[in-house]
Amino acid sequence: MYAVGIMSGTSMDGIDTVLVDIHGYGKETKLKVIGYHEYPMPIDMKAKIMKACDEKDSHVDEICSLNFELGYLFVEAVKVLLHKYHILSKDIDFIATHGQTIYHIPFQKGQLLPSTLQIGEPAVLAYELNTTVISNFRVMDMAAGGQGAPLVPYSEFILYSEEHKNIALQNIGGIGNVTLLVGQDLDQVQAFDTGPGNMMINEACRLLYHLEYDDCGHISAKGTVINALLDELMHHSYMKKQPPKSTGREDFGEKYVHYLVDKYKKEKPQDIITTLTYFTAKSIAYHYQTYILPYYPLHKVIVGGGGSHNQTLLHMLQKELYDIPVYTQDDIGYSSDAKEAIAFVIMGNETLHHHFSNVKSATGASDYVILGNITLPPR
Amino acid sequence: MYAVGIMSGTSMDGIDTVLVDIHGYGKETKLKVIGYHEYPMPIDMKAKIMKACDEKDSHVDEICSLNFELGYLFVEAVKVLLHKYHILSKDIDFIATHGQTIYHIPFQKGQLLPSTLQIGEPAVLAYELNTTVISNFRVMDMAAGGQGAPLVPYSEFILYSEEHKNIALQNIGGIGNVTLLVGQDLDQVQAFDTGPGNMMINEACRLLYHLEYDDCGHISAKGTVINALLDELMHHSYMKKQPPKSTGREDFGEKYVHYLVDKYKKEKPQDIITTLTYFTAKSIAYHYQTYILPYYPLHKVIVGGGGSHNQTLLHMLQKELYDIPVYTQDDIGYSSDAKEAIAFVIMGNETLHHHFSNVKSATGASDYVILGNITLPPR
Repeated sequence: MYAVGIMSGTSMDGIDTVLVDIHGYGKETKLKVIGYHEYPMPIDMKAKIMKACDEKDSHVDEICSLNFELGYLFVEAVKVLLHKYHILSKDIDFIATHGQTIYHIPFQKGQLLPSTLQIGEPAVLAYELNTTVISNFRVMDMAAGGQGAPLVPYSEFILYSEEHKNIALQNIGGIGNVTLLVGQDLDQVQAFDTGPGNMMINEACRLLYHLEYDDCGHISAKGTVINALLDELMHHSYMKKQPPKSTGREDFGEKYVHYLVDKYKKEKPQDIITTLTYFTAKSIAYHYQTYILPYYPLHKVIVGGGGSHNQTLLHMLQKELYDIPVYTQDDIGYSSDAKEAIAFVIMGNETLHHHFSNVKSATGASDYVILGNITLPPR
Repeated sequence: MYAVGIMSGTSMDGIDTVLVDIHGYGKETKLKVIGYHEYPMPIDMKAKIMKACDEKDSHVDEICSLNFELGYLFVEAVKVLLHKYHILSKDIDFIATHGQTIYHIPFQKGQLLPSTLQIGEPAVLAYELNTTVISNFRVMDMAAGGQGAPLVPYSEFILYSEEHKNIALQNIGGIGNVTLLVGQDLDQVQAFDTGPGNMMINEACRLLYHLEYDDCGHISAKGTVINALLDELMHHSYMKKQPPKSTGREDFGEKYVHYLVDKYKKEKPQDIITTLTYFTAKSIAYHYQTYILPYYPLHKVIVGGGGSHNQTLLHMLQKELYDIPVYTQDDIGYSSDAKEAIAFVIMGNETLHHHFSNVKSATGASDYVILGNITLPPR
């Protein structure tokens, strides 16, 4: 049956939509990606969302309206996807939508309870496209005591886990994060951040080249590693923390990169980019060697996210991991860009089959729970 | 099967919970009310909700947290209800919850789209009480072009409609509103506000007696109608407007009552209360005589809401309506206080049976639609 997944992430650059053919559920899931489209986020909508996310600037009347407005925008995004692949909305069996997170409180914070808030009204999607909609996936995991994130590991388990094989799913977005699949034992799934993904490389490209990123790793391919800089990076305190752990802009963002670029300003710009790229690869390998390989041999590594397009980074990672084969998600047949939208289709499908789709060891929830709520088509 | 309904209204005085035994659906619905409990709204929670409802004072972080906090409060309210009637939560088949409305935009207003926002996280109820939860009833009606209100008429149609009989369901809350059932034809259902309910009487009781309301109509029973005041009230511009129409505090609230009480300050206080009570009765009768009876003979009137406890008001209404018999909901066997909570159980039950539960002629929606979304129990 045909299903659509919608993911609108925190970067707010666009709305990822994916069209899949899906049958069965759980480990019997058969999934084929038919098409993917990234609907660009209109500038004025991004501004409205950013206002709604702001503790001081947000107001209930605007949030109330924006919930519906985003619903209509998601409808448009789905219509463009369906048109691109010549599918009629009446042929869609369900839509799974993440919604736009406008606030997330993973832990109690003063008077504020652990909670999360996604908007983009499912009733609007269900009514306009006359289909079943599954939405609001994160709340039930939080009701069960989890952090409501990460939710992608369940779909990785479904798509990639193999009996007697240990597989690392390495995502390289702004931050690097890994999901470790230990055979087909869901209780053993581990997920944690490995350090920076593209965040430091991109920021250095902006500072030194006025480029948004190192396209395919062309710059880093030409430079040489600066040993002093690499040594300093590998001594970052994040390396020593025991997983599960997570990091972000506060550790590896603009501030840190500006400091380093200034400190190593006598070095060649391309050598700085090469070193930061090598650090991303080495920090991933370090985390595997320190926190995974002593306990579980790894049979393969599958890289996804924007970093999977950086050839230099991939070569470096393969070199650091010796004989563990490194693939990209695209090698395996699943679009890296559509990953999260696909993940929500899988979770929505589980919900329709009254099956759980959180991973307790990833989110910290007390129970396996059925995620999301179901909005029925109007007629 | 056992079901619980939860209603938390705009007055924020308490959370109405009702326990019912329900079978079948649509006109085949068999419903028996087992018990009712009003859980008092904690003062600090009321303050938080009022802040979340305020365009200027509301903030996204607090709304995010309050959605979960109200979920936990609803859980407590349901637990108290179940304990009172010696029922275990495992015996509950579903919970239908209205949620707390924190904003409602019935019509486009500048940049703001028609939309509505209820909070009180259903995942928290589903997880903590391990049951299916239906919630968010108003959004789908609005997605279908309706105003998302009133939703109670569908349940009135289910509970009270009779073949070849025309029945007026008169609610007397702060405002008076009527649902007209024309035989068993759902398309013919009409609903509109008849003017003030208890709003003017209560405000005058506060001003003249420092009482919250005229208990059972004891004060008004002793007074005499002031003809000049009655005449002035009956000339209020709202009387002449063609239904469907709605009114509120802006027409019959504090400001208007203060003006009248001052203007008629030489009159006896009890005569003012009597006149305002008579006006409520007469405005209801006037609306029937002007907008209903020329088209449909009425076979009975059933009064619900707080006003159904005011004996003087009931006697006055019966007198004005001559030979049309006036009953109270309690006479018929359904608790007047539990009315809205019962209505949401009926709507939730329809949703579980994939059946619509809005009334197009009441909300203005373009379609009959399945209301609410379904959150599944975790295990």
